[in-house]
Amino acid sequence: MIRFSDPAAFAAALAALPKPNAASRNAAEQRQSRLTKPAGSLGRLEDIAGFMAGWQGSERPRADRVQAVVFAGNHGVAARGVSAYPPEVTAQMVANFEAGGAAINALTRACGARLSVVPLHLERPTGDITREPAMSVEDCLDALNQGAASLQEGTQLFLVGEMGIGNTTPAAALCAHGLGGEAAAWVGRGTGLDDAGLARKAAAVDAALALHAHACTDAFETLRHLGGREITAMAGAILAARLRRVPVLLDGFIASAAILPLARANPCFTQHCIAAHCSAEAGHERLLQALGLEPLLRLGLRLGEASGAALAVPIVRAALVAHDEMATFEEAAVAGRQ
Amino acid sequence: MIRFSDPAAFAAALAALPKPNAASRNAAEQRQSRLTKPAGSLGRLEDIAGFMAGWQGSERPRADRVQAVVFAGNHGVAARGVSAYPPEVTAQMVANFEAGGAAINALTRACGARLSVVPLHLERPTGDITREPAMSVEDCLDALNQGAASLQEGTQLFLVGEMGIGNTTPAAALCAHGLGGEAAAWVGRGTGLDDAGLARKAAAVDAALALHAHACTDAFETLRHLGGREITAMAGAILAARLRRVPVLLDGFIASAAILPLARANPCFTQHCIAAHCSAEAGHERLLQALGLEPLLRLGLRLGEASGAALAVPIVRAALVAHDEMATFEEAAVAGRQ
Repeated sequence: MIRFSDPAAFAAALAALPKPNAASRNAAEQRQSRLTKPAGSLGRLEDIAGFMAGWQGSERPRADRVQAVVFAGNHGVAARGVSAYPPEVTAQMVANFEAGGAAINALTRACGARLSVVPLHLERPTGDITREPAMSVEDCLDALNQGAASLQEGTQLFLVGEMGIGNTTPAAALCAHGLGGEAAAWVGRGTGLDDAGLARKAAAVDAALALHAHACTDAFETLRHLGGREITAMAGAILAARLRRVPVLLDGFIASAAILPLARANPCFTQHCIAAHCSAEAGHERLLQALGLEPLLRLGLRLGEASGAALAVPIVRAALVAHDEMATFEEAAVAGRQ
Repeated sequence: MIRFSDPAAFAAALAALPKPNAASRNAAEQRQSRLTKPAGSLGRLEDIAGFMAGWQGSERPRADRVQAVVFAGNHGVAARGVSAYPPEVTAQMVANFEAGGAAINALTRACGARLSVVPLHLERPTGDITREPAMSVEDCLDALNQGAASLQEGTQLFLVGEMGIGNTTPAAALCAHGLGGEAAAWVGRGTGLDDAGLARKAAAVDAALALHAHACTDAFETLRHLGGREITAMAGAILAARLRRVPVLLDGFIASAAILPLARANPCFTQHCIAAHCSAEAGHERLLQALGLEPLLRLGLRLGEASGAALAVPIVRAALVAHDEMATFEEAAVAGRQ
């Protein structure tokens, strides 16, 4: 199991990321060129086949064992009126996940992914980032390690989601810190905030940055000061996947913001990620551009919970089934270009 | 079984299209508002649930029985050098479909759709549209009726695809006739045409329009003069689905062009269609806009065969699973907005 003993171990892992297997990727691309279809006519599906081949180190990659994990956390900043819902909804939704009644339960059943839920000290919200760091060093390490520990042996495709009332505020703070620009450009309506709430949210991001920007000296300190437990766990989980060469379907705005500090520390960090979708949350499009990721889906989702990632699973699987099962021009005796 | 005895029967069917069930659609929308998620946060999935509810006349619609049909036809205009592939590939690909080796075989297996293939007189290409009508009245009716007959009893979601070397040329002619503009704006590279081929294709469209525009007095005559057997069969199949209130996942450029004459005759024709994807073929985006359809997927496909429609099946199914299986706020004891 991957475990970071201290912030230096986390930084060291981030500095020495494994690369995909170029030979497997090339072999998959060669195979694509022989299948009974005009070259390139399966568009993004062909890229996915090459991507998965590189990370699995196999000319014929698989997505049979798909794992989804949802991290939940509570946020001190939620007391500042930055969400349309009260903080107790985080724990209520965890109970709903466990009872099988949430969107992600239905969506993982629909795509055949195993789902687990990891609540992170819901009774102990993070510090209010407008006044103090979100977490102590110990709490931040614990969240990273709970994230890393969630990745199960044998997972071929990994989905990471979140639930946490108020968590678009720390996510917006991570974006404003990492990519610059006005707080107002990074805050969105989340679960359905009104105009006054949106103004409170921008003010909270401004206050958090004024207080902590100087202390955000690396990825760990940035997550610790501006993040949240579930956000940090997502970062740990997605880093652990990279260390195991497991490809990730990146969910929405919060998931993308969670890995921004890691991508700033090592720009090749996002190589093992496919952006599953672009959400309706303001700022996600720009954040994905900054991460160098082109989303697979644009369905106007703004739910989190790994819902967008679950919707993209059948696209990845279809790409691999076509790659694996299609006949070549030679096998099918179909003529090539004239 | 739906059968058009003559062109007047086809026109009469087109003039009296059934509407979706508004009560079922409203009931589905009411249910969506009670499910444990912020209102609207499942984006397009919520629209799909309402759409399917309306056409199936059920608050909880299903997409268990998904049927895909691929029509194949040959084109006289293919002799004008408008495709990168020789015309014998149409029959070779039909054999590949029947042997299970084509992309649509893999993609329908991946999404659990039943696939059938309908070759339409491959030994007898349509007339070269630059010199004569594509079909006689009898041949055009036969193609429409073969299309209509393909829809199986009990189908809950219908995918219609095509294979036909050269068929982006008649499709472009249908667009240029129906929507105006230069032929050059509607012709694309199809399966991978070079610049000289693209110029030949634009010239063929111009010649076809110069010869036949005056004769394209209604949907039937437009399909007969400018279309092709598989294009006309698609139109017949998609019309039959409407008459049976079966929703359709519309495939790419050819499928969209096939229904353009029907949509011009009756602008509400596309109401039972979801545009599965926007293809990489030039003109598809503009054609979808003219049809009033916003595509679900944009994956750079340009293959046909119903491949894009098959990729959209799991999105529709996921929308219905979430709609059917999610708990309501009341059932899960989750608090609403504060």
